[in-house]
Amino acid sequence: MNTIDLRSDTVTKPTPAMLHAMFNAPVGDDVYSEDPTVNELQEYCASLFGMEAGLFCPSGTMTNQIAIKMHTQPLSEVICEKTSHIYVYEVGGIAFNSSASVHLVDGYRGKITPQQVEAGINPDNVHFPVTSLVSLENTCNKGGGSFYTLAEISAISEVCKKHGIPLHLDGARVFNALTASGDNALDYGTYFDSISVCLSKGLGAPVGSVLLGKKNFIEKAKRVRKVLGGGWRQAGYMAAAGLYALQNNVERLQVDHDRAKQIGQTLALADYVAEVVPVETNIIIFRLEDHVNTEQYLNYLKDKSILASSFGPQMIRLVTHLDLTEEMMLHLLEALDTYQA
Amino acid sequence: MNTIDLRSDTVTKPTPAMLHAMFNAPVGDDVYSEDPTVNELQEYCASLFGMEAGLFCPSGTMTNQIAIKMHTQPLSEVICEKTSHIYVYEVGGIAFNSSASVHLVDGYRGKITPQQVEAGINPDNVHFPVTSLVSLENTCNKGGGSFYTLAEISAISEVCKKHGIPLHLDGARVFNALTASGDNALDYGTYFDSISVCLSKGLGAPVGSVLLGKKNFIEKAKRVRKVLGGGWRQAGYMAAAGLYALQNNVERLQVDHDRAKQIGQTLALADYVAEVVPVETNIIIFRLEDHVNTEQYLNYLKDKSILASSFGPQMIRLVTHLDLTEEMMLHLLEALDTYQA
Amino acid sequence: MNTIDLRSDTVTKPTPAMLHAMFNAPVGDDVYSEDPTVNELQEYCASLFGMEAGLFCPSGTMTNQIAIKMHTQPLSEVICEKTSHIYVYEVGGIAFNSSASVHLVDGYRGKITPQQVEAGINPDNVHFPVTSLVSLENTCNKGGGSFYTLAEISAISEVCKKHGIPLHLDGARVFNALTASGDNALDYGTYFDSISVCLSKGLGAPVGSVLLGKKNFIEKAKRVRKVLGGGWRQAGYMAAAGLYALQNNVERLQVDHDRAKQIGQTLALADYVAEVVPVETNIIIFRLEDHVNTEQYLNYLKDKSILASSFGPQMIRLVTHLDLTEEMMLHLLEALDTYQA
Amino acid sequence: MNTIDLRSDTVTKPTPAMLHAMFNAPVGDDVYSEDPTVNELQEYCASLFGMEAGLFCPSGTMTNQIAIKMHTQPLSEVICEKTSHIYVYEVGGIAFNSSASVHLVDGYRGKITPQQVEAGINPDNVHFPVTSLVSLENTCNKGGGSFYTLAEISAISEVCKKHGIPLHLDGARVFNALTASGDNALDYGTYFDSISVCLSKGLGAPVGSVLLGKKNFIEKAKRVRKVLGGGWRQAGYMAAAGLYALQNNVERLQVDHDRAKQIGQTLALADYVAEVVPVETNIIIFRLEDHVNTEQYLNYLKDKSILASSFGPQMIRLVTHLDLTEEMMLHLLEALDTYQA
Repeated sequence: MNTIDLRSDTVTKPTPAMLHAMFNAPVGDDVYSEDPTVNELQEYCASLFGMEAGLFCPSGTMTNQIAIKMHTQPLSEVICEKTSHIYVYEVGGIAFNSSASVHLVDGYRGKITPQQVEAGINPDNVHFPVTSLVSLENTCNKGGGSFYTLAEISAISEVCKKHGIPLHLDGARVFNALTASGDNALDYGTYFDSISVCLSKGLGAPVGSVLLGKKNFIEKAKRVRKVLGGGWRQAGYMAAAGLYALQNNVERLQVDHDRAKQIGQTLALADYVAEVVPVETNIIIFRLEDHVNTEQYLNYLKDKSILASSFGPQMIRLVTHLDLTEEMMLHLLEALDTYQA
Repeated sequence: MNTIDLRSDTVTKPTPAMLHAMFNAPVGDDVYSEDPTVNELQEYCASLFGMEAGLFCPSGTMTNQIAIKMHTQPLSEVICEKTSHIYVYEVGGIAFNSSASVHLVDGYRGKITPQQVEAGINPDNVHFPVTSLVSLENTCNKGGGSFYTLAEISAISEVCKKHGIPLHLDGARVFNALTASGDNALDYGTYFDSISVCLSKGLGAPVGSVLLGKKNFIEKAKRVRKVLGGGWRQAGYMAAAGLYALQNNVERLQVDHDRAKQIGQTLALADYVAEVVPVETNIIIFRLEDHVNTEQYLNYLKDKSILASSFGPQMIRLVTHLDLTEEMMLHLLEALDTYQA
Repeated sequence: MNTIDLRSDTVTKPTPAMLHAMFNAPVGDDVYSEDPTVNELQEYCASLFGMEAGLFCPSGTMTNQIAIKMHTQPLSEVICEKTSHIYVYEVGGIAFNSSASVHLVDGYRGKITPQQVEAGINPDNVHFPVTSLVSLENTCNKGGGSFYTLAEISAISEVCKKHGIPLHLDGARVFNALTASGDNALDYGTYFDSISVCLSKGLGAPVGSVLLGKKNFIEKAKRVRKVLGGGWRQAGYMAAAGLYALQNNVERLQVDHDRAKQIGQTLALADYVAEVVPVETNIIIFRLEDHVNTEQYLNYLKDKSILASSFGPQMIRLVTHLDLTEEMMLHLLEALDTYQA
Repeated sequence: MNTIDLRSDTVTKPTPAMLHAMFNAPVGDDVYSEDPTVNELQEYCASLFGMEAGLFCPSGTMTNQIAIKMHTQPLSEVICEKTSHIYVYEVGGIAFNSSASVHLVDGYRGKITPQQVEAGINPDNVHFPVTSLVSLENTCNKGGGSFYTLAEISAISEVCKKHGIPLHLDGARVFNALTASGDNALDYGTYFDSISVCLSKGLGAPVGSVLLGKKNFIEKAKRVRKVLGGGWRQAGYMAAAGLYALQNNVERLQVDHDRAKQIGQTLALADYVAEVVPVETNIIIFRLEDHVNTEQYLNYLKDKSILASSFGPQMIRLVTHLDLTEEMMLHLLEALDTYQA
């Protein structure tokens, strides 16, 4: 059996159909905005979310970092949850790329409330940086795939609008959130000033994210992308995969969620597991009993051709995705079930 | 009666004796390191703390920010308590001046433990900035004047040394800490790689802080001071005040502490006060009962010629210092005692 | 006839053979260094230049900016020619990404001398940033495709080594330089601390550049790539094109050079041309007579399906590349010859 | 005889009258904008130049750097002369503090023309930073004390206004420029968006510069001053010296200029001098004949109690100021006259 790689949903590889779309794509020089496939992807993705324009970039870190740079200036402060990807996993990029400070909210499973946002806004005082951005993550990676509903987003947006502070969405797994909440992507454009949409996680494209925002915002964002080194040339091959993913791989995310729940249920019954974070989308985070050695457990799985991630002391993360077959699921569930600590 | 200004210990004004010292000081151009009084202050202050060299700067924010810049580089991370001055009150300078990220420890009254430091050090992974500095504050301003003992400092230093991470002290009120703990300043040189000593708080000098460190460190720090605009010319007048303060105003800090305790006791008995943070040095922080209007209370004091600081919702801060006379104390205690919510 | 796009050699599109290589490349998650094709490209490219390791990135701007960041820190200064790409065309990235200053050398056709390097090194003085990097460009874009010989490089390297200052090469068109000079790529490893090799210019790959350096340097550079957002996932499709280009499209660069010379000769005879910068590689820069309207001239060419770049007042740039056919050449030469100002 | 220190006009020491003013100044906490003497200085200085407000800072580097930061953002570019103080002598602060790029104009004796400004403004193109500031220096230090007239300033201002680009003045020696040109300081407010006025050069105050601008600009500039560490407390002692200098030491600058001219004439006749840069204000720059050893010459002067600065290969700088007495002048002229190479 092939390796069952559940370390992340970034590890998926294109299907033959996606590859076919990629290598038949018309391309051009995207630095001159002349790649027709890139342009099509950008417009299509923007239209899905009720936004005006899009910018295709090599990674979600780049789309997030460009958005943060666009909304802030040095002496600004960004409000985000203390476990959010933009703060924890982007190499301190808020400080590096934007010289901006952070106000870290102590949220619940990665989610913050309108009250916490309001309380985190700095008064106008020479000692404090200027609160210039609120950033949400949906779904929340470190929160175990928890998600915001549109009602929650709307309430936070209201606080932001009252204070004239833009609202950004790190939508690394936004389609998982939309699948779970049943909300409509189109409504997001009402609440967010910018959205980063990742194409290479659950959607299965090999490379890239799209930054969405107003036309003028995206025009200016191209200068930021350029200085970061994200001005690529014939990127249409990658864009074609993204387009294919948006058009073919969204509906099937429910399968990933169902499987994640099933995995969670199996783990909940296992006596070597102390706790399973409630499974809401495609991420399963669980805590091993104290007597279980994490490394031994990961090696046990590896011997069964299963790759999982260590996610803090005694914590393990599994992520379901489109490369997980039904046969693999059976093998996985049995492996999880039969482990002896 | 003159205003009793207890908003901070930064508001004190030089005594005639200090003024005399200032205006009889020999001076020179400090950008060329030719101001004899500045040089004397730097050497004297360094010798007090068992450090090799010092650098006189216009503010404690500058000495802290220079130290942070010296110890870090972009893609670095600084470990500090979440209410520490360097993070909260220096305008996001860690990001602005050093492009460095922060790991914010949730301490107790501003203090952190060796375990928290150890847990906050990033593993070597491309997603994380490199942990490059641990910074303590002694006493802790937002912690209500709490202090570290040498034993606590030594334990944190041990973790730092194990990991090869430098340890900085924001000593804005370090002499208050030494007064309260009974520790010897000389021992600090063993544990800290750099110390910022403030001369314009409880010590009563009008302007300035001294950054202490190894000779080579201070030599390089001059370039950072220069780029921040801290290269001043005939600074000896200010240095003379600092020297006078170090030589004359340290022992009297016990008086400030005793008075602060007395104020705390009065407040503890007042029925409009919900809680007084235990008074350890010269800072009194207390919480008003919910039915008390903070602004009204501050205005009541103002009418009695007393200035206090708002310090968060329902929170008030008072700071004792050398401009507070015995007569003022009596007036103050009565005013605190007789307030009717 | 198809458009003859000579604005740059970045506009080329993959041939069917290159597409075939891309389509069949094994891929993996490059953030985990698990993409076999990316790994192969990196090793192959490093071996060509006698360097230890490589890092595949989405653009030459990114490889240059990572190198500059790696070699410098804030308060550093970079010595480069005043028309160099890293200074002129990378959006001020030296200041943005590295907070470093520049010492701009007034070179001849983009080239600088060992004497100019030596004279540009700052003395150790608190007023000056620390000279931390010398950067060359080979060939020089703004210099009209001029190139350094190995002897010239060696002499500059000697100055750098004497002062302990690293030497970087912006090798956007390094294979054009090697073709023209007859020098051996392998020797470059002796002189340069880092090299940026572009795959998407004359070599014809759609996307990407490779940064070369020592193993340890490249390991650390991954963190910089990550924070800039250059950590891409299944990048192997693009890497396959780069590998193909390195293995198949280097030798044919002589054809581009021969054609460029031919174009230059035609232009030299045209009475509407005031001056042709000596053609050394694949770039032709020429100045129109003062009475010729630049825009009208570019439109004339456009009407003949020829795209050229405006390159300063009265200046025009043409770049030859592998998408220029023999038939196109004939059409182009006639068009250049028959223009009436 | 006391040392005749002509290395710079920064080396002067307060007269008894200035010391008296300092010693009797009322002070307060300037971080709370409560120092009456600082406030008076700021208002007085602003009113002299027809500006709305002022900010007192420890150095001219700080006032310049704050102004640059206020007018720019990362991805901006500053136009200035290639020998200007803000670029050459402020440790690369444009990159360090503002992450901004520079466009260096090749001026004549430190001065630039409206045509050069116009030519230096970047087109709106994703490859270039945004031109956001033009900065002049008056007088020009490296230009040998050359000065702009109001007519020249007005012409440059016109270009700036046409393009909506602010104009800053580094007025380190602005009163020397006004003395030489006979222009009125009040008119400067019409042309400059910000002015840095130095009090510690020819004016003879020990420490400090004032940044001038619109009210709103200065309010925001306080946050930048704070993050750089320039928020000092009872700065009134220093401000009093500045006030005294502005009110008593401006008219006497003509004496410095006359003496500088006299020194220049003496040097012009000396056979060991190859060239004297035309003396326009209080700076004398001259070039020694090739056979003269610079160090020997400086030592010769030192033996005669005269300090001068080396200012590039074979170049020497002398600066006249208010600590130079008539007796010293005679001694100096004789020493310059009698040197034998």
